Amino acid sequence: MSRQLKLGAILTGVGTGQADWLSPEIPGDASVNIDWYREQARQAEAAKFDLVFIVDSPYITPDSAPHYLNRLEPLTLLSAIAGATSKIGLVATLTTSYTEPFNVARQFASLDLISKGRAGWNVVTTGLEGAAGNFGREEHIDHTERYRKAREHLEVVQGLWDSYEDDAFPRDKQHNRFLDPSRQHRLDHKGEFFSVTGPLNIARSRQGQPVIFQAGISESGRALAADFAEGIFAGVDNFEDAQAYYRDVKRRTAQAGRNPEHVVILPGIAPIIADTDEEARAIERHLHGELDLDKALVHLGRPFNYHDFKQYPLDAPFPELGDLGSNGYRGHAEHIKQVAREQQLTLRQAALRFATPFSHFVGSPQTVADEIERWFVEGASDGFNIRVTAPSEFKAFTERVLPLLRAKGLFREEYSHDTLRGHLGLPVVENRHTLARRVDAGLKIPA
Amino acid sequence: MSRQLKLGAILTGVGTGQADWLSPEIPGDASVNIDWYREQARQAEAAKFDLVFIVDSPYITPDSAPHYLNRLEPLTLLSAIAGATSKIGLVATLTTSYTEPFNVARQFASLDLISKGRAGWNVVTTGLEGAAGNFGREEHIDHTERYRKAREHLEVVQGLWDSYEDDAFPRDKQHNRFLDPSRQHRLDHKGEFFSVTGPLNIARSRQGQPVIFQAGISESGRALAADFAEGIFAGVDNFEDAQAYYRDVKRRTAQAGRNPEHVVILPGIAPIIADTDEEARAIERHLHGELDLDKALVHLGRPFNYHDFKQYPLDAPFPELGDLGSNGYRGHAEHIKQVAREQQLTLRQAALRFATPFSHFVGSPQTVADEIERWFVEGASDGFNIRVTAPSEFKAFTERVLPLLRAKGLFREEYSHDTLRGHLGLPVVENRHTLARRVDAGLKIPA
Repeated sequence: MSRQLKLGAILTGVGTGQADWLSPEIPGDASVNIDWYREQARQAEAAKFDLVFIVDSPYITPDSAPHYLNRLEPLTLLSAIAGATSKIGLVATLTTSYTEPFNVARQFASLDLISKGRAGWNVVTTGLEGAAGNFGREEHIDHTERYRKAREHLEVVQGLWDSYEDDAFPRDKQHNRFLDPSRQHRLDHKGEFFSVTGPLNIARSRQGQPVIFQAGISESGRALAADFAEGIFAGVDNFEDAQAYYRDVKRRTAQAGRNPEHVVILPGIAPIIADTDEEARAIERHLHGELDLDKALVHLGRPFNYHDFKQYPLDAPFPELGDLGSNGYRGHAEHIKQVAREQQLTLRQAALRFATPFSHFVGSPQTVADEIERWFVEGASDGFNIRVTAPSEFKAFTERVLPLLRAKGLFREEYSHDTLRGHLGLPVVENRHTLARRVDAGLKIPA
Repeated sequence: MSRQLKLGAILTGVGTGQADWLSPEIPGDASVNIDWYREQARQAEAAKFDLVFIVDSPYITPDSAPHYLNRLEPLTLLSAIAGATSKIGLVATLTTSYTEPFNVARQFASLDLISKGRAGWNVVTTGLEGAAGNFGREEHIDHTERYRKAREHLEVVQGLWDSYEDDAFPRDKQHNRFLDPSRQHRLDHKGEFFSVTGPLNIARSRQGQPVIFQAGISESGRALAADFAEGIFAGVDNFEDAQAYYRDVKRRTAQAGRNPEHVVILPGIAPIIADTDEEARAIERHLHGELDLDKALVHLGRPFNYHDFKQYPLDAPFPELGDLGSNGYRGHAEHIKQVAREQQLTLRQAALRFATPFSHFVGSPQTVADEIERWFVEGASDGFNIRVTAPSEFKAFTERVLPLLRAKGLFREEYSHDTLRGHLGLPVVENRHTLARRVDAGLKIPA
């Protein structure tokens, strides 16, 4: 079978944009309504999507967009969705800056067993300085330290996930032998940020370990991705940037000694689909017109740690910000500055341009399908994370665009696997202790 | 309606006893098998139980009993069970010693919304010294400090739960008004252990706040219970102790200025039911006979931080231990020492006696029902947490004992509520900020 598109559905409740919730289709409580989420996950599974994806962040202000203000927590949410689905992958965002690796390892391993091998962890470091205040710190951890900590956190979590080899539990009632203690392993990690003895009190799932996702586009984010990421939720918003990012990350992955096919790059997109390209563009203009500019300015300030953009004239060139944002969502902040400079945007234009963190693929079903094919074939992506808010929008994608992609032979008609690794074409992670034993015994190592 | 028994089902997978898993009825993977848990939760709901209860602890050694070695994590587990049930309460154990209040508040609030008002938190401080090593500490926090920290942790969590008043979200699309910012509240807590600004990014459920459970029987545990607990999973194992404990906690609750009816005391029991008392006692003797004494000694050592009891002669009097265990599960350790002393037990007898942490109500259905009634009527309990392992045991309870309790008018035929607070007769927690506003406005305060 030829190379296949990978598709994720970003379930966002009332939507991450500031005006999405105004749609008459979206219940005002969608972000805390488990029935709403279950139904969307079921629809994504019916469309044979690879995964559903939950974004997250642990800090709000009264100005935060509706979805951020009041939403279900990703791990509990996906555990609840697990029972309403049986095939689709379940990827939750969780920060390494304000969590204990032992607890994180345990909860993701538990989700992985509950879902029978469908869990993924989107590793973030939290870009909002205010988050520090929710976790007993006077100041936010700085960007470089955050990524050093993320790296160590991940090493600990993956080490804990291998606490038990896959044959650790003979469960032999006749001989009263539940555990084979030689297959249980302590970790005894001692590092800069964490000391963790282990073992973890939970075994591995059929996919070995949950899949590691990453979303950073800064230099530190890309370096982390090269070493750890198996999936990437890329925040790029045009073809050229996506292509450059794709090549850079695949090259870095190869240089890190990993198979570049084992990191799947999925830019986030929010398609706007109508019968004709013109109608779709009219809908986009209408959405921009509906935007509350004050709120768009707040949203624009988010990657810059909620910098107050209201202080600048709206129709003057985008302001000079120095290194503001370098300790926030650095990659996003730099991207906004660069685009505003290169395209000579005014502040108003920038606020509209970045009102949602997703690319808009705008046009007829054929136009959108062709654009998806172009990104996929010309080395800009391995697939996409589609933002899901209003049901009619998602339906337009699954009922009008997907058939075209299937006709092109780019997307599955049926699932051929039932784990997330299976869908994404990622290998089951061999347990490191089992592998070491094979080496010791001079046995063949699986590819 | 007269005062009604409250019943919880402690779902323990392969069982917390060291030999439970040997039962042919119990699959060896029960503790990591979500289908097993869902089915047991459904059966408990069919029997109209108040709640299911998940015990926990974040530390193991190769000697730990089977259930501890490999099990699902409580919050993800109960989120998964939520969708398979619609009425029964869901109570998860989680430590305050090695978690961030912001994350804990968020996950329980999320479980509470996912289950539509059925969540409860069993607050523990973790009695095992080895747990420290999994969370970057050289030494376990000492018993007194652990309880001081628990108190502050709880204050922060409950404060965060009130971040939004119940009318905080007008969700008025016509006027583009999602949040009423005057109904969103920061916490700005600064204490000995935690500094947390808030607000929490999730609203309250129909029951206001998750129900607080507590299980400590030490002096510090009772003091914490008096101030915070609304439910108690009591580890008492005979009528006299239970009665003394019950009176003490109810009195302390009253002295703390709270309504003693708003703390529901549920001793944990593992009934052994047969056609006749004699047969039931024979089964108990048989279970004791099957016990592996080496493992029973390990289990006995657990409250004493896995003290090695194998060093002592088996048939000599229970050894003198000084203040060993005072930094472990202090209440349990003291209880074991006291019982061994008062009943002049040998080490062998003590190992058999405490091989499970539950009282055995042993006898015919009538005997067990009568004993339950005696505890309930004579001020030793408000109900029980029934340990669930083998399906036939639970079935014996629900099909043979429950009808007798119903005939006595002690237990519901049908649910009359669909929140955990509703089942337990606990009031919905009024939001503190709403209450303050009522006071300011001179309005009537609800009872």
